[in-house]
Amino acid sequence: FSHTAIQGNILSHCGMFLSTRKICLIYDQENFQGKRMEFTSSCQNIMECGVDNIRSLKVECGAWVGYEHSSYCGQQFILERGDYPRWESWSGSNAYHIERLMSFRPVCCANHKESKITVFERENFIGRQWEMCDDYPSLQAMGWPNNELGSMQVQSGAWVCYQYPGYRGYQYILECGEYKHYREWGSHAQTFQVQSLRRVQHVQRYRRNCKDLIA
Amino acid sequence: FSHTAIQGNILSHCGMFLSTRKICLIYDQENFQGKRMEFTSSCQNIMECGVDNIRSLKVECGAWVGYEHSSYCGQQFILERGDYPRWESWSGSNAYHIERLMSFRPVCCANHKESKITVFERENFIGRQWEMCDDYPSLQAMGWPNNELGSMQVQSGAWVCYQYPGYRGYQYILECGEYKHYREWGSHAQTFQVQSLRRVQHVQRYRRNCKDLIA
Repeated sequence: FSHTAIQGNILSHCGMFLSTRKICLIYDQENFQGKRMEFTSSCQNIMECGVDNIRSLKVECGAWVGYEHSSYCGQQFILERGDYPRWESWSGSNAYHIERLMSFRPVCCANHKESKITVFERENFIGRQWEMCDDYPSLQAMGWPNNELGSMQVQSGAWVCYQYPGYRGYQYILECGEYKHYREWGSHAQTFQVQSLRRVQHVQRYRRNCKDLIA
Repeated sequence: FSHTAIQGNILSHCGMFLSTRKICLIYDQENFQGKRMEFTSSCQNIMECGVDNIRSLKVECGAWVGYEHSSYCGQQFILERGDYPRWESWSGSNAYHIERLMSFRPVCCANHKESKITVFERENFIGRQWEMCDDYPSLQAMGWPNNELGSMQVQSGAWVCYQYPGYRGYQYILECGEYKHYREWGSHAQTFQVQSLRRVQHVQRYRRNCKDLIA
């Protein structure tokens, strides 16, 4: 190993090189064992690909969302680049555990650097509002008056909202658009409760690097 | 409700008003039921306060760390401002669940705005290094070569490192100082695996607001 320091501003450096390539490797056993498949686009039902379920995975490029059920239903889990050897590595410590994923898709508009969301106190974009461009592990620490968000508008980037502070509990992945009631956050949403919120991290990497990963 | 927008730069605004007050309300039953106690400083063993265990809590000021065992041992859980009605709300979705906390303490040097950490590829501060001032849900997405950190130096602020991407898995709360081996990250650390890392959020709030909270 050399003592080379990784240059500080990787984000702005890589931002110049657009890559739309997204790669997700899935396995039907824990710890990257069993049947293995490589995906570069969404999968509505993993059983149609000849795999019973997903029990571990590696994200090599891009950001993805995994779902409890087929057809992008049930609990949602944000999957950014890295290794996910078992269900605990994607699950949000909810009361009931999702030990496998049945469908998944890339997050298309993630842009860590230029993300913007407006949150509203009440449904239908009324009440107090707050425009955010950063990650907030506790909305209440920043002055938000309670443990709920009524509605949201994502202007740019992609965001993950969490039921509890510190990015825990139910997750809701929100891409550009309007979410005027919790029913629009996802098929598993049952409450307005949101206590932390962050940008999805997706670095536009060198195209060359992504090719290296496939090789 | 008025349509008042909460001003964007709350952080820098509040940074002018120092408050050392930290308040944590604990309950021995879930959902903020049962025996209730208010703390403004650390507690080495909750049983010595006449409470068997902590099953729910509210952080009203400051950032705290909760521990699986007494004397600040076992798994660590970062607790920022907000409501924690059940163990899932603080647990990091690990293979074994911590359904109660036995000791806790405030995080003293948290400073969301001016946090700095240097991470190293290998133990004892050798190998590639990277100085960070922001939150990173995936270190690999930013170019870090593997799923481990060898050692760390926290120059300012307080940080949470996580085993898995997206702030999941085992948590390690690191305050100013040197951590030259995973054994120094916490009594529960058993691996160098760290795939995401973020600042602890603690806003220096108006002293008046904190008083209001107690009233």
